[in-house]
Amino acid sequence: MPEIVDTLRTLVSPDRIVTDPDVISSYAHDEAAWAPYGTAAVLVRPESTEDVRNVVAACAEAGVPIVPRGAGTGVVGGANALDGCVLLSLEAMDEIVEVDTEERLAVVQPGVVNDTLRLACAERGLWYPPDPSSAPWSTIGGNVATNAGGLCCVKYGVTRDYVLAVEAVVGRGEVVRLGRRTAKGVAGYDLCGLMVGSEGTLGVITEVTVRLRGARSPERTVVGYFDSLRDAGAAVSGVTAAGIVPSALELMDRHVLEAVDAWRNMGLSADANVLLLGRTDLPGEAGEAEADAMVRLFEEAGATWAARSSDEAEAESLFSARKLSHPALERLGDLLTEDVCVPRGLLPEMLTRVEAAAALHDVHIANVAHAGDGNLHPVIVTPKGDDAARVRAERAFDQIIADAIALGGTVAGEHGIGLIKRRGLRDELDPAVIAMHHAVKNALDPAGIFNPGKVVGTP
Amino acid sequence: MPEIVDTLRTLVSPDRIVTDPDVISSYAHDEAAWAPYGTAAVLVRPESTEDVRNVVAACAEAGVPIVPRGAGTGVVGGANALDGCVLLSLEAMDEIVEVDTEERLAVVQPGVVNDTLRLACAERGLWYPPDPSSAPWSTIGGNVATNAGGLCCVKYGVTRDYVLAVEAVVGRGEVVRLGRRTAKGVAGYDLCGLMVGSEGTLGVITEVTVRLRGARSPERTVVGYFDSLRDAGAAVSGVTAAGIVPSALELMDRHVLEAVDAWRNMGLSADANVLLLGRTDLPGEAGEAEADAMVRLFEEAGATWAARSSDEAEAESLFSARKLSHPALERLGDLLTEDVCVPRGLLPEMLTRVEAAAALHDVHIANVAHAGDGNLHPVIVTPKGDDAARVRAERAFDQIIADAIALGGTVAGEHGIGLIKRRGLRDELDPAVIAMHHAVKNALDPAGIFNPGKVVGTP
Repeated sequence: MPEIVDTLRTLVSPDRIVTDPDVISSYAHDEAAWAPYGTAAVLVRPESTEDVRNVVAACAEAGVPIVPRGAGTGVVGGANALDGCVLLSLEAMDEIVEVDTEERLAVVQPGVVNDTLRLACAERGLWYPPDPSSAPWSTIGGNVATNAGGLCCVKYGVTRDYVLAVEAVVGRGEVVRLGRRTAKGVAGYDLCGLMVGSEGTLGVITEVTVRLRGARSPERTVVGYFDSLRDAGAAVSGVTAAGIVPSALELMDRHVLEAVDAWRNMGLSADANVLLLGRTDLPGEAGEAEADAMVRLFEEAGATWAARSSDEAEAESLFSARKLSHPALERLGDLLTEDVCVPRGLLPEMLTRVEAAAALHDVHIANVAHAGDGNLHPVIVTPKGDDAARVRAERAFDQIIADAIALGGTVAGEHGIGLIKRRGLRDELDPAVIAMHHAVKNALDPAGIFNPGKVVGTP
Repeated sequence: MPEIVDTLRTLVSPDRIVTDPDVISSYAHDEAAWAPYGTAAVLVRPESTEDVRNVVAACAEAGVPIVPRGAGTGVVGGANALDGCVLLSLEAMDEIVEVDTEERLAVVQPGVVNDTLRLACAERGLWYPPDPSSAPWSTIGGNVATNAGGLCCVKYGVTRDYVLAVEAVVGRGEVVRLGRRTAKGVAGYDLCGLMVGSEGTLGVITEVTVRLRGARSPERTVVGYFDSLRDAGAAVSGVTAAGIVPSALELMDRHVLEAVDAWRNMGLSADANVLLLGRTDLPGEAGEAEADAMVRLFEEAGATWAARSSDEAEAESLFSARKLSHPALERLGDLLTEDVCVPRGLLPEMLTRVEAAAALHDVHIANVAHAGDGNLHPVIVTPKGDDAARVRAERAFDQIIADAIALGGTVAGEHGIGLIKRRGLRDELDPAVIAMHHAVKNALDPAGIFNPGKVVGTP
């Protein structure tokens, strides 16, 4: 048994320490296909900030890496185990500490599931907007670590826009509070913002204070069927150019619709090659007008059919289909999920390039996109165990990243870098910016223990 | 002549270099009363990023500090000269490089005045929300350096929420681009966000890409007169508790109203001890309903008079009075301006404490506040040249900071730390967090040349 395990047994309650290799291996990786992962020395499930403090201090002393993780729903390998590491699962720290209706904020432990927080807020007439498709399973800690997005981002921003403060264990075991409880503040550097999206490489987040909004007006849904990705992309550009900021604007192509149909028999693919789902949450007449305008803009872009959904149950089921796209596609093979984001107006061009990459590399690519954001999730599907297809998929993956960068986009809209986007990150950023990343990483992680090698790699 | 001046003459066009002591001294400090400032070696007014790069490289080589500045409208001494420094005024880099209506973003040089950008956006049906009272003079570069706020923040956030990317000269003269042009992105650490609010201590910002919104609906204004700060504070809490997010909610007390009247003869102080100005920009009926609700809530909190403004010219003049409060008060003496921010619900308590501090320390304090944010600007007014009053003012200043921290607030809502809030920053943050600041500062400013001693001080 590695020495660190004996040390941890003296610091943390024994029932929080897991050495069973089968259990450890079930925590060894997230949902990224083909990302490497190692064998952890031990899994620790802390119950308190004090537990985390003890683990960090012991690992800093012993020079043992820590890989923090939430629910493991990530898709870039950010939570993948390193050989000999301490896997730190925050799942047991799942308390909603406080929901303050007057200040419109909530304080939660990192293991609280996104949907659990959203429900607790809704019961008080409040709303926590970030809504990744993983919301029924993913945790706020993981959402903060990856700066998770979701369907609402087109109008309401990403996780970073809602994190007011974090408590974190940093350095060699210091417990710090970063950020504030007030509506505004500029007391020193934005170290709280720096923690958001840092994927556990700068410390372990042990508490999060999030900003909330008031419950919003009911949404109206607009549905559009299109023959081609190009037409659907033109509809999205049309909505943007008209100055409309929808509360959601999602795209699914035929491959996705067929996969959902095959699983749930929803009959989506019979009518459309590409489905666009738009929503507005403007109140009253303004919402009516915006929904009508979206229908008109869909039609002008060549929709074969476009209409407002008269039935919100039907609209909900269409959005469920959107959220089920990933598990539906998983039934077809291994998935390599892209997350590139391009300037909104270049969405049609980027969709065209994705199709070209699929053809060139002879791979099956299903497209879902937070279209209103220019954030695409082309999913490359390969038959399980087909090594040649895997090689082709990785080439297509690299091609799509190169195309996104060439269009002034980014390799990571909302999933993070983890392991599988590290080369893309180096392609996107100047060497001087990479050097700044390493300088910050070394400054804030002097023991080099926090998820080493992830995101920015080693110098 | 210091050696650095000779060096700079070989690198930058001679007409960009100023050595006239009178001119240099006119750039030696911002608007903070009594904050120390030194004598700069030279003033440089770069025309290009290349100029800035050359200045930074030369200063890094020679170990000469650089103090960057915009319009000098800051109130915390952040732009104050250090002895022997190079004062770097970005005023000549004032080009609006691009306004992209489809992507809803603008690219500007740092010397562009806030109102100039806002006007250029408005001409294209777009809106750049951050609206500090200094907007007619202050520059986007300075706004970014201090993470400036304004009246709109209560609903639309602060400068940080609008900065997508910056170009900056960092380290020993590296030109870097931080951030992105896309709606979303999580490619590495949020180094762009780290630059915002760092007051020139991490590099010199040479270009800013800001996110824009579409033009909004015309605002409706609600006016309330109150006998006491307590009643007005209760009205603000009532608005917040009702779930209303106004587009502005500003407070002015009798001292401010009298100062504006004495200058501009607006007759404000005849009717009210405390004036609350609320606004809503919800469209259509929703806006009507929200304005009416604010009137009712003002009345329920004890307003002596409350009504919707039927005349938007009158409403504009009331908001002008708000924006003129600082120059109006300047006519009465030296000003020491606070910027504390407390949780919204504690605004009445904080206002009471400000009154108590004024009484205890026998100073004249005029109150303006971004009330909806919990962001107070008590202005301590002392007769010019009255040293005893100055000592009492500084005691009251410290007392207000201590009270804000005790209420869970922050020492700096939107003005920054500069020189005069450094002790407050140390009182607000844990030593471990201060140590993180120093670690980041040292990592990103290895030559120690960027506005040294400001914000976090020296270790």
